[in-house]
Amino acid sequence: MKIHLSLIGMGAGHPDHITRQGMAALQRAQLVLVPHKGAEKADLAELRLELCRQLLPPGNAVVAPFDMPVREGADIDYLGAVDRWHDAIAQIWLDTIARHLPGGGAVALLVWGDPSLYDSSLRIAQRLAQRVQLTTTVVPGITALQALTAAHAIPLNDLNAPVLITTGRQLRERGWPAGADTVAVLLDGQCSFQTLAPEGLHIWWGAFLGMPHQLCISGPLAAVSETILRERAQARARHGWIMDTYLLKRVTDDET
Amino acid sequence: MKIHLSLIGMGAGHPDHITRQGMAALQRAQLVLVPHKGAEKADLAELRLELCRQLLPPGNAVVAPFDMPVREGADIDYLGAVDRWHDAIAQIWLDTIARHLPGGGAVALLVWGDPSLYDSSLRIAQRLAQRVQLTTTVVPGITALQALTAAHAIPLNDLNAPVLITTGRQLRERGWPAGADTVAVLLDGQCSFQTLAPEGLHIWWGAFLGMPHQLCISGPLAAVSETILRERAQARARHGWIMDTYLLKRVTDDET
Ligand SMILES: C[S@@+](CC[C@H](N)C(=O)[O-])C[C@H]1O[C@@H](n2cnc3c(N)ncnc32)[C@H](O)[C@@H]1O
Ligand SMILES: C[S@@+](CC[C@H](N)C(=O)[O-])C[C@H]1O[C@@H](n2cnc3c(N)ncnc32)[C@H](O)[C@@H]1O
Repeated sequence: MKIHLSLIGMGAGHPDHITRQGMAALQRAQLVLVPHKGAEKADLAELRLELCRQLLPPGNAVVAPFDMPVREGADIDYLGAVDRWHDAIAQIWLDTIARHLPGGGAVALLVWGDPSLYDSSLRIAQRLAQRVQLTTTVVPGITALQALTAAHAIPLNDLNAPVLITTGRQLRERGWPAGADTVAVLLDGQCSFQTLAPEGLHIWWGAFLGMPHQLCISGPLAAVSETILRERAQARARHGWIMDTYLLKRVTDDET
Repeated sequence: MKIHLSLIGMGAGHPDHITRQGMAALQRAQLVLVPHKGAEKADLAELRLELCRQLLPPGNAVVAPFDMPVREGADIDYLGAVDRWHDAIAQIWLDTIARHLPGGGAVALLVWGDPSLYDSSLRIAQRLAQRVQLTTTVVPGITALQALTAAHAIPLNDLNAPVLITTGRQLRERGWPAGADTVAVLLDGQCSFQTLAPEGLHIWWGAFLGMPHQLCISGPLAAVSETILRERAQARARHGWIMDTYLLKRVTDDET
């Protein structure tokens, strides 16, 4: 069984984030794998299915939803738990492919945002490659960060200056990164900006970016932190889940 | 005169990097500004014109090429020179708009990659807003970094780990960033990776990403550094210009 896998960056929330390359790759697929990640992320699976409905000629490809395995809670052996989880997902991909495309062929997976950014599809594909003959192509997609800067109409970097991309956990555990003036944060379920001394920091925050219920708040961190916490809690209650990201910058006094 | 300006991320080298959002925004434009940045970048203007030919219904919109002003050499007053340069570009935008769309309307600019990443269009638009009634919309696009990781089929970040995006100049002047394990470098005309101690570093390099003559080289920095320098010089001689970017990672011994 020979498999060609396309990991297609689908963008981060808007169906029109998809690129022409992404559309063409999807249309070449014989099988499209659609992960379901539990109730709170049904909206994400729905966007994938919507893209398939819009873009796939009827009857051309099999669209195969599959349930994502649950990851062990892993306070002790975090990396081991992630490893086993990726193994389990690779096995589900393989089983789903064997069922629908027993002779092998072109498989596509719509990856949220871009496949390179805080996403495990490439790592899972590596595991799949140990079990079956596999070639993998990556199609780039719009990331949540680009959706954030576009929504606020702001540059990511200052003139010729560096930008650090990091996670909520890192920000919480390590504090403001040494030497950084611009920090972009993803994967933060806990509003970790609260743990920083807000003086001199400006935040551009966005939730549900690209979606009809997109929320954007920006301002000096000291001034808008409470508003973000409140709006985030309300939006989360309203929708049953939330996805947010933000950019923090050290600003000089006259810019605040 | 009221102007609505769309800064459309066009992707970083392949005409099919364009998103559905980008196509729609381009098609709504009455005037498309196409910067020419001198002979060596004629290829870049050409890709913009190709997108206009492919996507604009004939006769619908005016496509207006304009010459970019030359930036003063500015070893002493770098920021001042950039300021004056942005002012000059804003004035050219305004003149071009006044000539072709004297009553105002919808203007589009195809921005290389994504408008948020090492690009001055948003800063120039701010200056334009001081001279005319302006609303600005940003449409995100595929960045060179995403084209790089896609071409190499690699993740940008390690599991939950941070990534620093920086410039060749920063890398040269400040050395390996303190605390970083993954560093992405853009705007490096001088192969600044040469200034680093290569031990323990792995590089994924790409030039002309997304284009027919795309080049990719990866490996331990110590082993491939010379090859990159040679291939880059040859490719640059062949095409008259070059555009390249790379990702550096500290790797543990068993990964090299
Ligand atoms: C597992 S990462 C995947 C990132 C994705 N690969 C990308 O390129 O954007 C998920 C995180 O991305 C951010 N994110 C993704 N989509 C988002 C959206 N539409 N609005 C706000 N944040 C988003 C959130 O920080 C979320 O925790
Ligand atoms: C002024 S910056 C603009 C970046 C752009 N806004 C983006 O989002 O990719 C130009 C730098 O981007 C990188 N770059 C852009 N396109 C590239 C390509 N097709 N191949 C390699 N590098 C590219 C190079 O490092 C170049 O010096």
